[in-house]
Amino acid sequence: MKSNIDYSLYLVTDRKLMAANSIEECVEQAVSGGCTVVQLREKTASSREFYETAVRVRKITADRGVPLIINDRADIALAVNADGVHIGQEDLPLEMVRRIMGKDAIIGVSVGNVAEAAAAAAMGADYLGVGAMFATGTKTDANLTGMDELRRIRAEIKIPIVVIGGINKDTVPLFAGTGIDGIAVVSAVVSQKDPCGAARELKTLFKNTMGVQ
Amino acid sequence: MKSNIDYSLYLVTDRKLMAANSIEECVEQAVSGGCTVVQLREKTASSREFYETAVRVRKITADRGVPLIINDRADIALAVNADGVHIGQEDLPLEMVRRIMGKDAIIGVSVGNVAEAAAAAAMGADYLGVGAMFATGTKTDANLTGMDELRRIRAEIKIPIVVIGGINKDTVPLFAGTGIDGIAVVSAVVSQKDPCGAARELKTLFKNTMGVQ
Repeated sequence: MKSNIDYSLYLVTDRKLMAANSIEECVEQAVSGGCTVVQLREKTASSREFYETAVRVRKITADRGVPLIINDRADIALAVNADGVHIGQEDLPLEMVRRIMGKDAIIGVSVGNVAEAAAAAAMGADYLGVGAMFATGTKTDANLTGMDELRRIRAEIKIPIVVIGGINKDTVPLFAGTGIDGIAVVSAVVSQKDPCGAARELKTLFKNTMGVQ
Repeated sequence: MKSNIDYSLYLVTDRKLMAANSIEECVEQAVSGGCTVVQLREKTASSREFYETAVRVRKITADRGVPLIINDRADIALAVNADGVHIGQEDLPLEMVRRIMGKDAIIGVSVGNVAEAAAAAAMGADYLGVGAMFATGTKTDANLTGMDELRRIRAEIKIPIVVIGGINKDTVPLFAGTGIDGIAVVSAVVSQKDPCGAARELKTLFKNTMGVQ
């Protein structure tokens, strides 16, 4: 089942950037517009608030048949029966998250270059979040991953790749021919007045971009 | 084994307050001075840094036969095979932490009053951290738990109780006759130039205080 996941429009939540009144409302609309994976990311909430939000989001994603991935916190993922965990280079090591979550969980890793990508794939990551591709308001100081590096990662790594960081309708066409599996979007969906419409538009644009590669 | 734990001198780490060069050095000295339980608390570290510190502290506590409790993060507790998890009212619910950690794990809960204490005990907490008892530099805005409330908690709840918040050599004697099982110390040990000597002194003082109740 893990092998059939559609990573094409991967939503990452951001409480500070969202236009909606609640994370749940934002996720509901984004999934209605075609988001295929939801990653709940809470960097400032208390553990309790993170957990309670995850319980509510879990209902929405389960109803729609969309995988729910929890950022960083394997304990919260277990507590809400999420489908997986996404970890960065500053989170728990992949082998520990795998041990905690079990073999059926989806575990994704943020990587910025070929070396990190190869290490994550070798340790059993299910997919990679590659970036940040472009500077953004949230990641101004990030070391950006260039298109050439992305192509090297794609050439070397066989597991699904989603790109993240400054992905919006202006930048999606730049990925034509890169062979990526999906785009991870934050503000391009959550900051919009119409997250549903924004998601729908991005999904169509991504499909068209990949279709002509 | 859980029922034999000596809670008398319960150390809570604090990276910002410590005088030692590292958490490990601080824990090593505190345990040498007689601390009977170590709670690793990291409120600002990344998950990776928290995990890596926990791996190193785990070696020290295992060598000394002292239980290691992880603050808030059940996933990190699982990753380092800690003995338990301590949760506050803003952390994951106790029933979820129990499900994640299993029945043999030590789970402690911070409570401030009888209602919270009774709820935690009913849900299967192994011990209670009661407080904050006195105002401190780290908890200036906390609602304090009075001595009368502590006595009511003790009268109603049978599981072990440690008091926390402003516990030092001046305040320990005030607990004579309260029937508590231990004192949780932060700055009274970690901020001292000689954490080992400070721990030894506090332990003797606590034993003497309880002995004459």
